[in-house]
Parts: sequence; structure tokens; C-alpha cells
Amino acid sequence: MANESSIRARVVVQQCLHAKLQVKLSEAKSGAEWVEISRGMVIYVCFFKGATEDIIPKMVNGLLNMKICETDSGKYTSVLELPGSVLIVPQATLGGKPKGKGMQYHGNIGKEDGQRLYASFVAHCENELSLSCKCSEAGTEVKHGTYGNRQILKLDTNGPYTHLMEF
Amino acid sequence: MANESSIRARVVVQQCLHAKLQVKLSEAKSGAEWVEISRGMVIYVCFFKGATEDIIPKMVNGLLNMKICETDSGKYTSVLELPGSVLIVPQATLGGKPKGKGMQYHGNIGKEDGQRLYASFVAHCENELSLSCKCSEAGTEVKHGTYGNRQILKLDTNGPYTHLMEF
Repeated sequence: MANESSIRARVVVQQCLHAKLQVKLSEAKSGAEWVEISRGMVIYVCFFKGATEDIIPKMVNGLLNMKICETDSGKYTSVLELPGSVLIVPQATLGGKPKGKGMQYHGNIGKEDGQRLYASFVAHCENELSLSCKCSEAGTEVKHGTYGNRQILKLDTNGPYTHLMEF
Repeated sequence: MANESSIRARVVVQQCLHAKLQVKLSEAKSGAEWVEISRGMVIYVCFFKGATEDIIPKMVNGLLNMKICETDSGKYTSVLELPGSVLIVPQATLGGKPKGKGMQYHGNIGKEDGQRLYASFVAHCENELSLSCKCSEAGTEVKHGTYGNRQILKLDTNGPYTHLMEF
């Protein structure tokens, strides 16, 4: 794992049977909007100051090919091989560092840069799934939250198998 | 945050409106058993080799007093002050270290030591909540998973506010 001072991105990954994320709050004229996936992987992602576009392919490659998804027979494979869907949740709180009884987020990337890297991360994930024959045949999908919003999430797992990965 | 080689425990924390964890699989003669909490905090915990009993009070104190729970007015307070309930999930996968396309868990604590520290962690959390007037009055509770089991989890959030803390 990367040394703290050199960490550019922190990711927490959980497995799911079903996950649902609100992407638009309910308003007077319209109800809330949600995206959802069935079996697959929830990726919570946070970028730090100094993160640049060049880490995105490495991150996406590492995450989508890492054998942390359980098959029906109890073995472990990647989300691309499962094949499963992916729900990406922007999660700035992951950049928090305890200071007394509060959390500080001084290491987090600025809003514009974060938004740009997040969009690129989503696009790279979409591209990887579209290039995978298994994913295309099974119709698995990439869904994602809106950067900067509250991430209202409902998660149903057969064991989250929570993993931390830093880049 | 602690240097990697000196990390004794890794914790991921999420806020919830409701969380439900299976603690006993369904068997021929009996249905599955679940524990659940309403509003509060889900704590996923993993111990590393070298972790000892003396880190438990510091961990519990840090986690239960950290201002990462959102109040109705949108401010942040601790789970003890909210007051909220706590669901503790043993999560050995958090100790994983990427090696090629797989995860290795060589740094994880052995089963017996892990079980003992986990039980102590749960007991310290229960004690802290029982000592809190706000928690006692509101009837908030500590629930927890069974160490070494599959952690079948269902989570409902108003934003998970995922945080990482290492000790």
C-alpha cells in the first residue's frame, strides 16, 4: 500500500447482491431519482491533492481485475470475470484524518479537479466493462453517483467483503 | 494516520438509518438469526498481527467520540451524543494487501488473538454506551456479528459518510 504522503486516491470496495443510490433529490415537481445495480461491486472513491489523470487507468485496472468477488461456488474472481455490475460512489469523507474529536479533510483534492478525475474514473470503468465480452453478454452495467451530492445508499449483501485500496 | 508497518487495527465506519446483520445461518431445524440497529453507526473492524489489548480502549474512545454522525439539523456529532446505536462487523478482508490480481492477508492477526480482541472491542463499546446517559435514556444499543462468520449485511443510509480510521 502506498505511503500516506504519496497516496493519490483511496478506495473502499464492497460486494453486493443489490445496491441503490439516489442521484437526484425529490423536488416539488419531480420525485427522487435513483440508480441501481444487482450483483456486483460498490466502489467508494476519494481523491487527494496531487492526484492526476495518469492514475485513473491503473486504479480502474486494479479494481476491476482484482479477485475479490465471490462466485456461486465460493471461489474468488474479478468483477469483470464474475461478471458483475459496478456502482461508483464519490466519497470525500474517505479522505478524513482524525484531529481531536473531529475529522479534517485538508488532504482532499479541490472540487473541480476532483470532479474531472471522478468523471474520468467513471468513463474508464464504463469502457472496461464495454470491452469485456462476459460483461456485454451478461448485460452488466456501470452506475454512479453525482459528485458533490449526498449519497443516499441502500445496500444488500451476501457479505460485503470490505476492502481498502490506495493508489 | 499510523504508518503501515505499525498499524494494529483498521476500521471502516459508515452511518446508517437501519442495518441488519445475519449472525446465524439458516439450518434445518431453525431459521437464520439476525441482529439489527436503527439509526447509528456500522463499524467494520480488522486487527493486524501485533495488536494487543491496550489499543482497545483508545480505539473505542476514538470511534464513539468522533464527530462523524449527522444530526437532524445537519451538524456533526458523535454516536454517543447523537445518540445512536452501533453495529460491529468483524471484517478480516480489510487487512488485505493487493498482490498481483489477488489479495493477501498475511498481516492479519491469528484467529484466537483476533477473536479475543474482537470480544474485548465489543465489550468496551457496550460499556461506553451503558455509561452514556443519552444512550441509556434513548435505549440505543450495541449489536455485533460473530467473529469468523460470513457477514450477511443489509444497510440503509441517508449517506454512508464512509470513514477510515487506523490505530
